Amino acid sequence: MPDSLTSLRHQLAAFAAERDWQQFHAPKNLASALIVEAGELLEQFQWMTEEQSRALQPEQKQAVAAEIADVLLYLVQLSDALGIDPIAAAQAKIQVNARKYPVATARGTSRKHGAP
Amino acid sequence: MPDSLTSLRHQLAAFAAERDWQQFHAPKNLASALIVEAGELLEQFQWMTEEQSRALQPEQKQAVAAEIADVLLYLVQLSDALGIDPIAAAQAKIQVNARKYPVATARGTSRKHGAP
Amino acid sequence: MPDSLTSLRHQLAAFAAERDWQQFHAPKNLASALIVEAGELLEQFQWMTEEQSRALQPEQKQAVAAEIADVLLYLVQLSDALGIDPIAAAQAKIQVNARKYPVATARGTSRKHGAP
Amino acid sequence: MPDSLTSLRHQLAAFAAERDWQQFHAPKNLASALIVEAGELLEQFQWMTEEQSRALQPEQKQAVAAEIADVLLYLVQLSDALGIDPIAAAQAKIQVNARKYPVATARGTSRKHGAP
Repeated sequence: MPDSLTSLRHQLAAFAAERDWQQFHAPKNLASALIVEAGELLEQFQWMTEEQSRALQPEQKQAVAAEIADVLLYLVQLSDALGIDPIAAAQAKIQVNARKYPVATARGTSRKHGAP
Repeated sequence: MPDSLTSLRHQLAAFAAERDWQQFHAPKNLASALIVEAGELLEQFQWMTEEQSRALQPEQKQAVAAEIADVLLYLVQLSDALGIDPIAAAQAKIQVNARKYPVATARGTSRKHGAP
Repeated sequence: MPDSLTSLRHQLAAFAAERDWQQFHAPKNLASALIVEAGELLEQFQWMTEEQSRALQPEQKQAVAAEIADVLLYLVQLSDALGIDPIAAAQAKIQVNARKYPVATARGTSRKHGAP
Repeated sequence: MPDSLTSLRHQLAAFAAERDWQQFHAPKNLASALIVEAGELLEQFQWMTEEQSRALQPEQKQAVAAEIADVLLYLVQLSDALGIDPIAAAQAKIQVNARKYPVATARGTSRKHGAP
């Protein structure tokens, strides 16, 4: 069975090719489209408290899922356009983060983030 | 073999639990973190021409891969926090887009995007 | 006395001209640079609670001020590149918002934002 | 005559007070709202070429002006909530940039941006 992201990648490549959209899909443009969608995702949460964001109503959850989808679709297309394997990149980043934030010192602190 | 995103999800959940970071990982905060990383991703391309963005140097490609990884890691964690399956959401969105942009009318136009 | 934004506009135009940077300053690129800076601004707050964000330490406040400055500098340059008066646009938007959110119905609700 | 940004600040403070919206306007939330608007601004340009973005049609220019206004309105409110003077911060940043990018070495290069 092909991996889920590989399957998305093939579908999206066919989708763009059928519509002759590759001309618009320079990595620069795809990175712009990705952050535009990330903004629509954040918009769902912007006036909520943290608690409200942990307890979405069904229609809110559905709206969030649709925005997560849009971000993922552009992430897959951007990776494809550049020949980057996003899963391998993510696995490598997890290793980097494990070294950067050892359990002993990172436990219970968000100092990594600049917050006190 | 578990799917690649499922595997990431399990690793990231363990990573956060070991560090007691779930307290910071309200969906609202994860959506903020995602767009911050999307900004770091776009930063790589902001002054490039489209052509330059299609022909990255190896070190540029590596930097882009690391930012793609960060976006994906937060996307997986946000989805997990909300019980959303990002692949299912992406597949549903592809169906929506197929109805919204039929090949016959969408071919070669970026009108979907507000551009002429 | 010239208005503060007018003064910034003249300084930034001279700054870019001296460095021959107008070639990079297509509106598309300036809008990208603006959101990249907006991401650096949000990064300052991403793991804070709302309460923490209302009570910044002096060094945090200084860091936030520097990011606000970056956003404003690109906003002024983008407006200038397009011949848009940002103050007039803001005044017009305030009128639109006053009609859209009458005091009687908008009082105390964040419904405008999609939150419950 | 009061400065244009000062005037906006007073109007926006009254607008929020009348609607009892200060409760939602934690700096963290305002920084989120700002980047959401910055995304809507970038959306106007995302599939355009640089050349197209330099030659907007009147209705495109109007749409861009409305998004610039939204970004500015949140920037003013965020600054106000934190007691930051955005003009002073911008002037300070121009000084920093002048030292960081001397004319002699920065001329005609976008190297500041990571691009070749």
